[in-house]
Amino acid sequence: MDFDNVSRKDLAKELEELQREINEKNIPVLILFEGWESIGKGKIIAEVVKELDPRTFRVQNFRVEYGDQRALPYHWRFWTKIPAKGEIAIFDRSYYQALMGEEARKEGLDKGELEDIKAMEKALVQDGLLIIKLFLESSEDYQKERIRTLADHEVTAFRIREFDKDQNKHYKEYKKLYDKLIEETNYAFAPWTVIDVEDNKEGSMVILHTINEAIRQHLKKAPNPKHKYKPLKKMKDYLGELDLSKVLEKEEYDKEKDELQEEARELMYWCYANEVPVILVFEGQDAAGKGGAIKRLTRNIDPRLYEVIPISAPSKEEHRYHYLWRFYKELPRRGKMSIFDRSWYGRVLVERVEGFATEDEWERAYNELNEFEEHLTHQGAILLKFFLHIDKDEQLSRFEAREENKEWKITDEDWRNRDKWDQYQEATNEMLERTSTKNAPWTLVEGNDKRYARIKVLKTFVKAVKDRMKD
Amino acid sequence: MDFDNVSRKDLAKELEELQREINEKNIPVLILFEGWESIGKGKIIAEVVKELDPRTFRVQNFRVEYGDQRALPYHWRFWTKIPAKGEIAIFDRSYYQALMGEEARKEGLDKGELEDIKAMEKALVQDGLLIIKLFLESSEDYQKERIRTLADHEVTAFRIREFDKDQNKHYKEYKKLYDKLIEETNYAFAPWTVIDVEDNKEGSMVILHTINEAIRQHLKKAPNPKHKYKPLKKMKDYLGELDLSKVLEKEEYDKEKDELQEEARELMYWCYANEVPVILVFEGQDAAGKGGAIKRLTRNIDPRLYEVIPISAPSKEEHRYHYLWRFYKELPRRGKMSIFDRSWYGRVLVERVEGFATEDEWERAYNELNEFEEHLTHQGAILLKFFLHIDKDEQLSRFEAREENKEWKITDEDWRNRDKWDQYQEATNEMLERTSTKNAPWTLVEGNDKRYARIKVLKTFVKAVKDRMKD
Repeated sequence: MDFDNVSRKDLAKELEELQREINEKNIPVLILFEGWESIGKGKIIAEVVKELDPRTFRVQNFRVEYGDQRALPYHWRFWTKIPAKGEIAIFDRSYYQALMGEEARKEGLDKGELEDIKAMEKALVQDGLLIIKLFLESSEDYQKERIRTLADHEVTAFRIREFDKDQNKHYKEYKKLYDKLIEETNYAFAPWTVIDVEDNKEGSMVILHTINEAIRQHLKKAPNPKHKYKPLKKMKDYLGELDLSKVLEKEEYDKEKDELQEEARELMYWCYANEVPVILVFEGQDAAGKGGAIKRLTRNIDPRLYEVIPISAPSKEEHRYHYLWRFYKELPRRGKMSIFDRSWYGRVLVERVEGFATEDEWERAYNELNEFEEHLTHQGAILLKFFLHIDKDEQLSRFEAREENKEWKITDEDWRNRDKWDQYQEATNEMLERTSTKNAPWTLVEGNDKRYARIKVLKTFVKAVKDRMKD
Repeated sequence: MDFDNVSRKDLAKELEELQREINEKNIPVLILFEGWESIGKGKIIAEVVKELDPRTFRVQNFRVEYGDQRALPYHWRFWTKIPAKGEIAIFDRSYYQALMGEEARKEGLDKGELEDIKAMEKALVQDGLLIIKLFLESSEDYQKERIRTLADHEVTAFRIREFDKDQNKHYKEYKKLYDKLIEETNYAFAPWTVIDVEDNKEGSMVILHTINEAIRQHLKKAPNPKHKYKPLKKMKDYLGELDLSKVLEKEEYDKEKDELQEEARELMYWCYANEVPVILVFEGQDAAGKGGAIKRLTRNIDPRLYEVIPISAPSKEEHRYHYLWRFYKELPRRGKMSIFDRSWYGRVLVERVEGFATEDEWERAYNELNEFEEHLTHQGAILLKFFLHIDKDEQLSRFEAREENKEWKITDEDWRNRDKWDQYQEATNEMLERTSTKNAPWTLVEGNDKRYARIKVLKTFVKAVKDRMKD
């Protein structure tokens, strides 16, 4: 672009206009700044936001890792800061940092992390978010000069980290690394723009122009190509094949239960001491016994080590974000356990059956959920998913018992869900088929006999932690 | 109580029943465990929750300070973890820790902290929360014995901190301190129950019984006595006395603005380097120019150092908590600035005028807000509150200009608010009278001339930070 006839201020004003438009159209925009250290990223970002309405953008700084971040899966810190619909989030550094440090220089790019990044960006973009990735490029000499200048001034000297100097010292190696990183992550749905910052003023105009162009294109663009649902040709009837006649006698139950609860208690202390995060998912029809199974599982576990997260329909606030956002917020810290009573699988169960998600949304969710869980297990979590299954007669008798008991309220919604029994079975079977992965398998629990179900859950938990202890 | 005819399990089951009742009645319950170290607090808490429905209680552990907690006002960590309506939060240690450590032993109880605690508990209780404070008492010998036993076992040895041993070493001094602490904070609205834990089994029954009793009493109890609104006898017409004819010419404005914005930028870096948190509150009628003033103030400030928090009506989720909860969540970390575009003063402005808060609620809010802000300034924050005032004619012409411009939408609500102009003026005058404190004064801004208003805001900010630099 020829910038002769346009001022920085014009471009900034244009961006302000576009900010209003994306706000009206509820489009989330993520602008990501990466690049060489000590070359004036902060100032450039300040220039970009100068004319913006400060109420609908936020700058998120990921330069320093602090606090809880370290105790949670790496992407937690980014996912929890994604922009709401209609807002702009500016990431000052990002998840790319994991592939830009000393380790990456010496060991090369981590494949697993590359995959996790691609999955994250794709999930966001599919959801309608615009991502603008800017890489601020610098020559070796320019960076050296900048570091020297910063070091010379008392007020700026503290900003230089050891790493910044080290980066300059190994400039050529880092250059090779970054070129490769950009090449490998230059996805069509989330491309990089590399910008030379040596001429700072020009740089900021190019950046404003790049951002404006990207937003304008996005506003004009047709929506993402939709996933078309292809029913599985041969779907196994997982639920139908379960043997629901399995029972456990009271005496045996009492004995096993006490022992297993004691083991669960000890094993959870082991997870705590070894900083292993544990994530449990409970799904199942209404009255399948999720609550009871959770209670028996946690009974002896130190209550400081776990949290039970009941999941219901997303709130208005939660609707403003990608549907995974609210689950990221509830992930356990290392050494703790989060137990989800219903979960992100709502996307392919209730939201599919009830039509709360479009076909495109739930169809692509299988993959997104697998990738989400892959990130969690990559990051060291034990992830167990339980599906508690009862048959239709058993549900009816439990509903009736509850209505008599009056402790529980059976709502109209419960009865309506029951009417869609077959649709839920089908959706469940497909979910089991498509999301039972090696690292995060489903455990099917025969639920007609509560005692049997509870012991199976306890045993599965105990075995999973013991297996991890052997690793 | 005579426990001969009742089992621990009976009591736990009773608590489970009560849990259901408070859940139905939407009562938040906070159970707080304090006491001597290494005497088995964790196990006791585990016993208490054993029969509870894990979906509506949470145990919060404050033993170790970590992450963001240190960067925020001390009460932030507690306020953000208060129970929602209908739920139980169990605090394993609490805000009393600040008065139970080595410093308190040597220096005595900190008066400011005592006041802040009282204010916090009172604010919660007034809002309908039940607080049950349990102090687990131990003799010197019993604690010594416990520490020895824990130290003997590899799996428990890591739990003992240096402080635990030190506490036992200085047992008598700590005993005196804790007795005094309990005496001083044994409020009628939030009394302590001291429990000897030497007989562990008995201890847990006493605790269950105490909790059950407290909940039962609370369920029976008449609601808190209501504050009766007493209009101020002579209320100054702060707004009426403002000279709205003040103006600033463009030339002078441009010159002053550039200088002040540059100063604001530098001063905010100083706050960052010196870890001073800054909190700004903007209130004012619709179209008074809050957004514009904020934008001019932040224009040159490093966008990584501030956030603008637009406040609108609380969400459904937020309604489940004390009204201050959502503001605690947005407080700035040390060295950063949070700018509230509307704020907690909504309680005594829009909520008062529109009847969203009861007379009792907004009447007691003046005091609660003062105490809330006192805690923030105690903890080192610079807190500035701006009220931007325009007259009715000016508002009309701005509304009309906006309607023409179409960039902004003037909603029916805006016109309705305008109809209540006089009521808002009265509420504002009372707010100014009752919440302009030494540490957190209001700055009245003559808003008819936008330039004049913006410069006044900038100047006030610059002066406040400079004053702090001199401290």
